[in-house]
Amino acid sequence: MNASFTIEGNLVTESTAGRRRGDDLERAIFEAALAELAEVGYANLRMEAVAARAKAGKASLYKRWPDRARLIQAAARYKATEVDTEFEPSGDLRGDLRKVMRYIAEYQGTPFGEAIRGWIGELRADERDAEVEDLRARIETPRIRVFAKIYEDGIARGTVRPEALRPRVVNLAPTLLTHYFLTRGAPADDAVIEEFLDQIVLPLITAS
Amino acid sequence: MNASFTIEGNLVTESTAGRRRGDDLERAIFEAALAELAEVGYANLRMEAVAARAKAGKASLYKRWPDRARLIQAAARYKATEVDTEFEPSGDLRGDLRKVMRYIAEYQGTPFGEAIRGWIGELRADERDAEVEDLRARIETPRIRVFAKIYEDGIARGTVRPEALRPRVVNLAPTLLTHYFLTRGAPADDAVIEEFLDQIVLPLITAS
Repeated sequence: MNASFTIEGNLVTESTAGRRRGDDLERAIFEAALAELAEVGYANLRMEAVAARAKAGKASLYKRWPDRARLIQAAARYKATEVDTEFEPSGDLRGDLRKVMRYIAEYQGTPFGEAIRGWIGELRADERDAEVEDLRARIETPRIRVFAKIYEDGIARGTVRPEALRPRVVNLAPTLLTHYFLTRGAPADDAVIEEFLDQIVLPLITAS
Repeated sequence: MNASFTIEGNLVTESTAGRRRGDDLERAIFEAALAELAEVGYANLRMEAVAARAKAGKASLYKRWPDRARLIQAAARYKATEVDTEFEPSGDLRGDLRKVMRYIAEYQGTPFGEAIRGWIGELRADERDAEVEDLRARIETPRIRVFAKIYEDGIARGTVRPEALRPRVVNLAPTLLTHYFLTRGAPADDAVIEEFLDQIVLPLITAS
């Protein structure tokens, strides 16, 4: 392979990428990054492979994200709404909690989960920038809304203690699921979710 | 630099390393890996830099650990006892829990915390091998022993519910700390530890 061929190759790729401007190209790159994550995991993820899969020029990736940590963080933001924010409580407290917890665990089993794992693995204390905060808000805000909705419904029915609406408590079920997923390498299965509910979440929030 | 110089250089390094046999050399490499982690973080950790800092040959690193994930996992195992397993409950339930939780948070602020972060970032579901299980056991077993001791003391005094000894509950305080550390990039401070205690741990375990 000689230099002019390489340059020509890059030009062709860049011009293909050029036809998919802005959002379209970014979406293609994010989908490629998540597909790569699913296939090789974060440890083996390479910017070059993502570019090839997205049929994009390597330069068009590096122009937007200086390294794979930033790329994966952006891909995670793109896919960040993991809970169904339209979820409406049925009045069956245990059933509702189990349903939303299963939903989160299932989502952690997708490439989104691997994106979050990769992001966390490279997170540093000094990275308190707007993008990190935005990613956190995109994941936590919808969760808090859904669990708060279930707890408010239970409080109205007299099955849940009003203290369940304290911030650390509202975020407890997703915290247990995320910790399990991160330290075990795989999402919590139904048996583990039942244990979280029966040993921790329900005893803590149930009105006496 | 010519080939013979490079080879000679390697030989010198290897022979230096050769004088520190087995355990000594491994300890030097682990300390170097943890020092590197503290300085550059997992994202920027390079095997070459660890070798240079340990005054060891690159080959002697790669011979033992095929990649940085394995090296850091081994370094984390080397430093894995994060709680004081000799801890004796004082009878002050809240004070004892706060003390042990602060101890864990403090430890997470050391290079050991960064080693765990790096290990988790590259963990894959199919990596259920003996070393991963061993690392998990080295971290979780001492924690479980200490929290179980505090809860047993409280049960004997009538301040703690017997259900506090269920496995998910015994592991709850470290779970909250680890989740916070991993997703926030820095360990929980005293104010966060107080919230975990007052919103979650104490309401769950206190005998009514």
